[in-house]
Amino acid sequence: MSDFVCRNPDYNADTQKMFSTQAFMQSVKGELSITELGKAQILAPFQTEFSQQNGFFHGGVVGALADNAMGCSAFTLFEPGDMVLTVEYKINLLAPADGEEIVAKGWVVKNGKTLTITQGEVYIRKNGIEKLCATATGTMMRLNGK
Amino acid sequence: MSDFVCRNPDYNADTQKMFSTQAFMQSVKGELSITELGKAQILAPFQTEFSQQNGFFHGGVVGALADNAMGCSAFTLFEPGDMVLTVEYKINLLAPADGEEIVAKGWVVKNGKTLTITQGEVYIRKNGIEKLCATATGTMMRLNGK
Amino acid sequence: MSDFVCRNPDYNADTQKMFSTQAFMQSVKGELSITELGKAQILAPFQTEFSQQNGFFHGGVVGALADNAMGCSAFTLFEPGDMVLTVEYKINLLAPADGEEIVAKGWVVKNGKTLTITQGEVYIRKNGIEKLCATATGTMMRLNGK
Amino acid sequence: MSDFVCRNPDYNADTQKMFSTQAFMQSVKGELSITELGKAQILAPFQTEFSQQNGFFHGGVVGALADNAMGCSAFTLFEPGDMVLTVEYKINLLAPADGEEIVAKGWVVKNGKTLTITQGEVYIRKNGIEKLCATATGTMMRLNGK
Repeated sequence: MSDFVCRNPDYNADTQKMFSTQAFMQSVKGELSITELGKAQILAPFQTEFSQQNGFFHGGVVGALADNAMGCSAFTLFEPGDMVLTVEYKINLLAPADGEEIVAKGWVVKNGKTLTITQGEVYIRKNGIEKLCATATGTMMRLNGK
Repeated sequence: MSDFVCRNPDYNADTQKMFSTQAFMQSVKGELSITELGKAQILAPFQTEFSQQNGFFHGGVVGALADNAMGCSAFTLFEPGDMVLTVEYKINLLAPADGEEIVAKGWVVKNGKTLTITQGEVYIRKNGIEKLCATATGTMMRLNGK
Repeated sequence: MSDFVCRNPDYNADTQKMFSTQAFMQSVKGELSITELGKAQILAPFQTEFSQQNGFFHGGVVGALADNAMGCSAFTLFEPGDMVLTVEYKINLLAPADGEEIVAKGWVVKNGKTLTITQGEVYIRKNGIEKLCATATGTMMRLNGK
Repeated sequence: MSDFVCRNPDYNADTQKMFSTQAFMQSVKGELSITELGKAQILAPFQTEFSQQNGFFHGGVVGALADNAMGCSAFTLFEPGDMVLTVEYKINLLAPADGEEIVAKGWVVKNGKTLTITQGEVYIRKNGIEKLCATATGTMMRLNGK
């Protein structure tokens, strides 16, 4: 059970809506799941146009998905109408993202009034086996919508 | 004048070749310029399919370009046949990437035998004005090609 | 149970020995505990000479302890005679380190041949209550002792 | 010439005052210099009690000085009565801090209303030669004093 304060009863729908307006996420065919407050997950299939020199998911795409999963996890804790800005993110690439599908997970470590600190992990799936391929941290800023 | 040691007389052509095999960089229409050893620059035009919710360059694309410019800057200092791996990168998003064109610059701060430490800056161009929109750091690893 | 490979049967004693030769860790009265392969913990009491302007543990000391706990966690997985170098570390300060005692925990996320990727958390203890005050990530390099 | 806005005519004296109340900075005998708005520099002599296992400046001390130089550079741009908090910092250790004296430099890259993004470099001096031994980035938060 999460101990975060819910400030938006429609957090799931509103986070999905924000996500769906990002054209880049549509291009990578990202699917967002919000299972609980302060957590988010993005699933994306391999597509050649987002690959690097060895035919794996490009590290930049891995970073983009991690950043976005972390940003969405923060967004679930905001008030209706607020916006989220990434202040900074850092990603460690642990293993080649060689697989059919990638899953980026983000969660909130600390939810402050202005800043929300998040962490993330990215898993690559190949032949039914899931493997951690990146870890990330991100600092997210709440832009008050009022 | 650069004080780096040149280990590959064809560093410019070889870095271009490595870059050109990244499908994602072709998708974003990135153009790589190597002006000197230890420096790289990637220019990319705005395309809707790589935008975020406000119609600007997506932060994940900004990160991808910065990572790649830093990786290419390191690659210029490697031996023929070596490969480059990003160990980690961190990006600070300073301003919205709202413009027609984006330029990511990367340069080497320290070139070690195994690890090369790099920095980067990303500029957004709009109506003839160029503005710093992100700063980055990256740790690159040399994979010995021999 | 840990799934790391043990390359040094004396990893506990050798990590303690390496730690004990760091004069700065003696100055802060740090006590290292290694409970299992790939994990390390440093406990230190509050001392005025290591405080910041509000009389709390200085953020620089918090960072030093986190870095060291991560470095020691990596060191447990090295071969006898190897040395550890911090390539980079990043720390997020989540809450003031206001308390009588601080505990920095470090653990290995990925143990590579040359690089070991680690994470850390720092907890502050006050009046019997323990609170997360920082999260960290670190990239550690193994210097082959042979 | 700096293009930052001066919000505190006594920024030099006030930053010195804030710095002088950090007991840890007195312990390391740090000397702060503010040469212009948005820049700060801390000089510290080698002392055995702040060293690591090879008798060099401890990486944690290097990080603490870099963090502080960046924090002070941000502080010069604040209003009278404001306080500065480090949200996060990242440091790359490029070379052993083997020398008689260390100099940490910090400067502001972007000065926002709430967040100020900074960068830093640390130089080690030995036998009259100065060498870059670390690079850093930091995110600083302004706590409104009013």
